[in-house]
Amino acid sequence: MRRSRFFLPTLKEVPAEAQIASHQLMLRAGMIRQAAAGIYSWLPLGFRVLKNVEQIVREEQDAAGGQELLMPTIQSAELWRESGRYDDYGREMLRITDRHGREMLFGPTNEELITDIFRASVKSYRDLPKLLYHIQWKFRDEIRPRFGVMRGREFLMKDSYSFDLDEAGARRAYRKMFVAYLRTFARMGLKAIPMRADSGAIGGDMSHEFIVLAETGESDVYCHNDFLSFDPLSTAIDYDGDLEPELARWTSLYAATDEKHDAEEAKKLGNALVHARGIEVGHIFYFGSKYSEPMNAVVAGPDDKPVTVVMGSYGIGVSRLVGAIIEAYHDPLGIIWPESVAPFKVGLINLRVGDEACDRASEDVYGKLRATGVEVLYDDRDERAGIKFADMDLIGLPWRVTVGPRGIAKGAVEVKQRSSGAVEEISIESALSRLAV
Amino acid sequence: MRRSRFFLPTLKEVPAEAQIASHQLMLRAGMIRQAAAGIYSWLPLGFRVLKNVEQIVREEQDAAGGQELLMPTIQSAELWRESGRYDDYGREMLRITDRHGREMLFGPTNEELITDIFRASVKSYRDLPKLLYHIQWKFRDEIRPRFGVMRGREFLMKDSYSFDLDEAGARRAYRKMFVAYLRTFARMGLKAIPMRADSGAIGGDMSHEFIVLAETGESDVYCHNDFLSFDPLSTAIDYDGDLEPELARWTSLYAATDEKHDAEEAKKLGNALVHARGIEVGHIFYFGSKYSEPMNAVVAGPDDKPVTVVMGSYGIGVSRLVGAIIEAYHDPLGIIWPESVAPFKVGLINLRVGDEACDRASEDVYGKLRATGVEVLYDDRDERAGIKFADMDLIGLPWRVTVGPRGIAKGAVEVKQRSSGAVEEISIESALSRLAV
Repeated sequence: MRRSRFFLPTLKEVPAEAQIASHQLMLRAGMIRQAAAGIYSWLPLGFRVLKNVEQIVREEQDAAGGQELLMPTIQSAELWRESGRYDDYGREMLRITDRHGREMLFGPTNEELITDIFRASVKSYRDLPKLLYHIQWKFRDEIRPRFGVMRGREFLMKDSYSFDLDEAGARRAYRKMFVAYLRTFARMGLKAIPMRADSGAIGGDMSHEFIVLAETGESDVYCHNDFLSFDPLSTAIDYDGDLEPELARWTSLYAATDEKHDAEEAKKLGNALVHARGIEVGHIFYFGSKYSEPMNAVVAGPDDKPVTVVMGSYGIGVSRLVGAIIEAYHDPLGIIWPESVAPFKVGLINLRVGDEACDRASEDVYGKLRATGVEVLYDDRDERAGIKFADMDLIGLPWRVTVGPRGIAKGAVEVKQRSSGAVEEISIESALSRLAV
Repeated sequence: MRRSRFFLPTLKEVPAEAQIASHQLMLRAGMIRQAAAGIYSWLPLGFRVLKNVEQIVREEQDAAGGQELLMPTIQSAELWRESGRYDDYGREMLRITDRHGREMLFGPTNEELITDIFRASVKSYRDLPKLLYHIQWKFRDEIRPRFGVMRGREFLMKDSYSFDLDEAGARRAYRKMFVAYLRTFARMGLKAIPMRADSGAIGGDMSHEFIVLAETGESDVYCHNDFLSFDPLSTAIDYDGDLEPELARWTSLYAATDEKHDAEEAKKLGNALVHARGIEVGHIFYFGSKYSEPMNAVVAGPDDKPVTVVMGSYGIGVSRLVGAIIEAYHDPLGIIWPESVAPFKVGLINLRVGDEACDRASEDVYGKLRATGVEVLYDDRDERAGIKFADMDLIGLPWRVTVGPRGIAKGAVEVKQRSSGAVEEISIESALSRLAV
């Protein structure tokens, strides 16, 4: 993409309304724009990151056996009356009346709707287990939306739902999602720690929140400091396996959110106890028959007798993750994207637009990188070098390639890694092979 | 995907509420399920098609220079008051009050919001032209939703918005979208005819609807029968060019929707006049400064004087297209997907599950096709052949590969093309090379 054509409205000033780094940087880098309180438009740069994050979430769900579908944003109040949550949910639920006076709502979550789909479609134990998910915009009418996409009202969530014949199966589904979540966050460069958590409005007796430690997090959390060195990507996962060892490894050490914190138990950790702030990026629930029972989600068992299915649900805050990644990866100059979610891999700067050698070399690098499938943002604007460098640092692409008259005279370009700051002057050929996918 | 695991709730009966073929077939093939009047969940099979259609739309927008962003579903009423449409829009607009009593709405279209984004971000003529689009769920509270996804209340729409310095530029943007639309629909196997149309609630003085002729269409349309043989994919398009010849070619012959029909003019066509029913799959508008003027979307011109930008907007009904494609491609047995949008390219049937040779050959074909990137639905269920064949015909995958004991004895499988019905018995190797991507 040529910068001269790209819709990338960066800001020089830090917007007054933004209190935390991710909110400030998303506004300054032209990633989002507020449409109303807690409601944002995703501009092209932000949209690209959102899509990358979404795709990692999708791939890990699919790897764990999930099947994607898409439920609508608007739901009927009727279903929520069946589960009893229509009245329970309170004012965070955006309630709507249609032109015929029917009560509707903008879905804050989808347990009822997926259970309705399931009960209409699946009749036999032979069709179990099922793990269904969708990635859809949700709405929660937060009384005080804040911190940009971290606590917005309209937000993108991946929610999965598992259906099993018995508790053992459902707990196995829970472990699958537990492991899939660790891998999902790790692929984005995030160290997310699963912590015992309250199950709140979803219900159930087992629940973990996945927490990324960050000073600006809204959750108060406690955990063993060994978690900080765990690596969920180091072993291949067999989702057909039992996954007990993986769960045990990650749950044997103390980790709890404030609501579930046990000061007595934690005291035993001594110096190993970390008390920190964290961002909730995922939340998983085992809730048995909380929805399947009142909504009559029943299949015929092997002996033909009806069996009420056993369920869990599993959420990831896709749009919030974009903010969480920035909280984890930024410096005073701007964002530092991990390559897996970066909006472009390479930022190419032509230092002297109009100079024949610089133009030719820049176009050459731009064309060749794109031909190998590398996403490049090419700053071809006739602007001062300082402005171009500051913009590139702000938007945080992993690699910067600078083409200037001095280097080009000897066939060289400058390659800089955003994360380490390491700079090298190398030949165009070396740069191309270094940056090729 | 193994059929035994796939969430594909096909129905044997034709649902009573569905009147037209696409609605009936989408329900029977387990593609969608109604969540409320005019509101549908897209089950995995339908979701795959929806994503394929969306991706073609996206690629053709990008080819024409469009940049993708994403605006929220919920908008503030304030912006719609600025344009004057809040009161004009009537009861199709789903109006919502949030917990603080603020008036909001579920966007039926986005002219106001995109103009707000534009005016806040673009300040100079140097940043023009811009063509921005998004693909987002919209809501129109139809008084009588019907025909499944063809006239739903919640529907997926691609809407693009062009911003230019003058009328000539804006009309060029209009031509770009005109041509991009022809290519988009053609890639899905649809012959869409651009017809003079009324500009309705969007406004403006030039507008075309893109109409797919179909008996079940809701529009009454008239056109020259030469349109039926035009091919928009036969020539490469240079979007940096003027595109006047392309527009002229497609607008020189008579084509109009009922509202714009001129009986006198049409009479001159004699026998060449086609009077038919059609499905509106796209609608484009040139409306000049209808929104930029009241909303003050102004840039500094080359002489530094303020210039009110000139706009157009361009919509494609992404979810409706899935229905339109089925209306165009089905037979009494079921759907006949064009390959470009098919949920899987190949349906693989193992006629004798449990037979060692059949199982081995089926697994072999399944593994090898997937390894070359072919999407395969593998019916590995222990069901009667008749049920498997009927299911495959119903869901309409382009190619069916049948593995049976008789063929396997001589190393052969049966390959059947859904569209032509042509059947061949060929070696496994030949089948694999025929079906590889």
